[in-house]
Amino acid sequence: SDAFDATDHPHRRYNPLTGQWVLVSPHRAKRPWQGADETPEQAVDTQYDSGCFLCPTNTRVSGDKNPDYTGTYVFNNDHAALTVDTPDAPQSDNPLFRSESARGLSRVVCFSPDHSKTLPELSVPAIRSVVDTWNEQIEELGQDYVWVQAFENKGSAMGCSQPHPHGQIWANSFLPNEIARKDDNLRAYYQENGTNLLVDYVNSEMKDGSRTVVETEYWIAVVPYWAAWPFETMLMPKTHVRRMTDLTDEQRDDLALAMKKLTSRYDNLFKCSFPYSMGWHYAPFFKEDQDDDTNIEHWQLHALFYPPLLRSATVRKFMVGYEMLAESQRDLTAEQAADKLRALSDIHFREQ
Amino acid sequence: SDAFDATDHPHRRYNPLTGQWVLVSPHRAKRPWQGADETPEQAVDTQYDSGCFLCPTNTRVSGDKNPDYTGTYVFNNDHAALTVDTPDAPQSDNPLFRSESARGLSRVVCFSPDHSKTLPELSVPAIRSVVDTWNEQIEELGQDYVWVQAFENKGSAMGCSQPHPHGQIWANSFLPNEIARKDDNLRAYYQENGTNLLVDYVNSEMKDGSRTVVETEYWIAVVPYWAAWPFETMLMPKTHVRRMTDLTDEQRDDLALAMKKLTSRYDNLFKCSFPYSMGWHYAPFFKEDQDDDTNIEHWQLHALFYPPLLRSATVRKFMVGYEMLAESQRDLTAEQAADKLRALSDIHFREQ
Ligand SMILES: O=P(O)(O)O[C@H]1O[C@H](CO)[C@@H](O)[C@H](O)[C@H]1O
Ligand SMILES: O=P(O)(O)O[C@H]1O[C@H](CO)[C@@H](O)[C@H](O)[C@H]1O
Repeated sequence: SDAFDATDHPHRRYNPLTGQWVLVSPHRAKRPWQGADETPEQAVDTQYDSGCFLCPTNTRVSGDKNPDYTGTYVFNNDHAALTVDTPDAPQSDNPLFRSESARGLSRVVCFSPDHSKTLPELSVPAIRSVVDTWNEQIEELGQDYVWVQAFENKGSAMGCSQPHPHGQIWANSFLPNEIARKDDNLRAYYQENGTNLLVDYVNSEMKDGSRTVVETEYWIAVVPYWAAWPFETMLMPKTHVRRMTDLTDEQRDDLALAMKKLTSRYDNLFKCSFPYSMGWHYAPFFKEDQDDDTNIEHWQLHALFYPPLLRSATVRKFMVGYEMLAESQRDLTAEQAADKLRALSDIHFREQ
Repeated sequence: SDAFDATDHPHRRYNPLTGQWVLVSPHRAKRPWQGADETPEQAVDTQYDSGCFLCPTNTRVSGDKNPDYTGTYVFNNDHAALTVDTPDAPQSDNPLFRSESARGLSRVVCFSPDHSKTLPELSVPAIRSVVDTWNEQIEELGQDYVWVQAFENKGSAMGCSQPHPHGQIWANSFLPNEIARKDDNLRAYYQENGTNLLVDYVNSEMKDGSRTVVETEYWIAVVPYWAAWPFETMLMPKTHVRRMTDLTDEQRDDLALAMKKLTSRYDNLFKCSFPYSMGWHYAPFFKEDQDDDTNIEHWQLHALFYPPLLRSATVRKFMVGYEMLAESQRDLTAEQAADKLRALSDIHFREQ
């Protein structure tokens, strides 16, 4: 029988951060598509939209009026999923009906006053301001909350309600599933090997090169070996950095540059505004009086990009039936995805 | 301060099957919607479509011709995600680059020759044939594979490539993530309590009633206490049944009736063909020569329905940014969702 060939034979890859596997079916990429088409994201051509609730000087549903801001602008989400003063939930006597009260808050972060510019179209200094804003927010909210999730939903395919460039910050009184699981896996690796899993991983990827998409002085973006979404990437510092606060000025400038390059490659892939959800993971804000173990040496700062498009600006990957009930599945290898992204210019097609 | 009220205060609920929490934000249901609209699924009005690759007598992309079938019809997927004879993958020397070869096959199950009829519009005997077909397939494939996932992706919102009523069967040489995790959790509960988690759960739900959507002689469908999707349900036998094969004739007839009632309520909710992914979980086919522990007393047969719609035929819940990076989140409680489904007729609106 034939020898195993990862570019042709179905296999599973293991994600050491989640403890989950992903089914890789590279031979399947060529099946015909008869399903739903997404509406491709169009470039927005107006810098100010009077109907947009994020543009400067406009009034929001809450009645609050946005200032005439010129950089980033942060406000409390008018429809937050969490409240700061939730009362304690009573204990249930049935262990199968288990709940706990949740406290927190949600903020909206406008990346720019310009309605028409998404992240890759902002200048490097403007992206640097977004980085600084994330960092300030995370530092402030980390004083009260164990977890602060900074993220961006971009494009209507990702449930984003409108095109003005913005992200969100949700602060939580609890460690959410994904962070709790990652904390467990990173900690176990650290205890077993005495090294940091993601630092070891960055070094392995730098040596290998086949999954690297963007590399700058201090940062590297790869399609992770265990990627689930077709063009998923992880953006990581090359050295050990536990939280955004620990970054130097040069590392922050360079992060802005790396983000511009990565998101430009994304837009260039299918010549559209590339939809994704992205966000930051880093050491949680464990509190001496609440947590058994406040050690964070096993953590490494990183951003995750989860983009749904698969074959064109209108054909996405659906994580549905088999994926929801059994296991994530992908139709091209991480190396094939990285090859495609690497073959593109890192200058945005509208800036070329 | 106020007393805790689950219909108003944010809280988290624990899913003992997955070990994951879900964030429930019932106060958030009223936020305005400005995001993408789904195209509502239209009723299909032709019983035979010459362009459909599932209709009787039509020729598929592979060149194979469908027979003039009258009941259900099963064939091998022309673009399977798995192959039966995958060679073994070599071991990597880097523990962070871990993979294994995957074997299996995929089949398509046409539920009916009638292009226009989805599950709720089939007669109870026709649905019973679908149940029998699932059972035969699972039994046959279970002889060779440890896991056989039977599922249906319904509607273009769930990536379904076309409306002809059909589902899929994917057989796996491995225990996929979701099944492995459930096996661990069910086994641990059994070892700790000496009882079956899902049998205990069915009994608790029958006593409580507030999450029950459909109840027949042998079956019950509930919005699980820990539901993540807005109108998610679990359909379970009322007694201990480890696999579909163990069902009696009466239990199968009654399952067809319960499925017709449940899916009719779904369609009645927003007066549309309600999209979802659904599938069956049950005791894996552990093999004496491959598995350490082949005991399956901790397992209970159940179907899971994951429907995305939230507020209307066109407004869905997006499991995006916060959900992908941190934790699933919902905008109404399981009890509120069950109330809405219970308030509807269980006769399909087109059959009323
Ligand atoms: O096999 P289909 O219907 O073409 O494909 C659909 O279901 C599969 C199994 O859930 C998914 O992997 C695909 O992403 C989805 O589009
Ligand atoms: O807050 P938004 O942008 O209205 O809502 C969007 O992002 C949220 C956080 O990921 C999700 O809970 C919503 O389902 C999604 O539509």
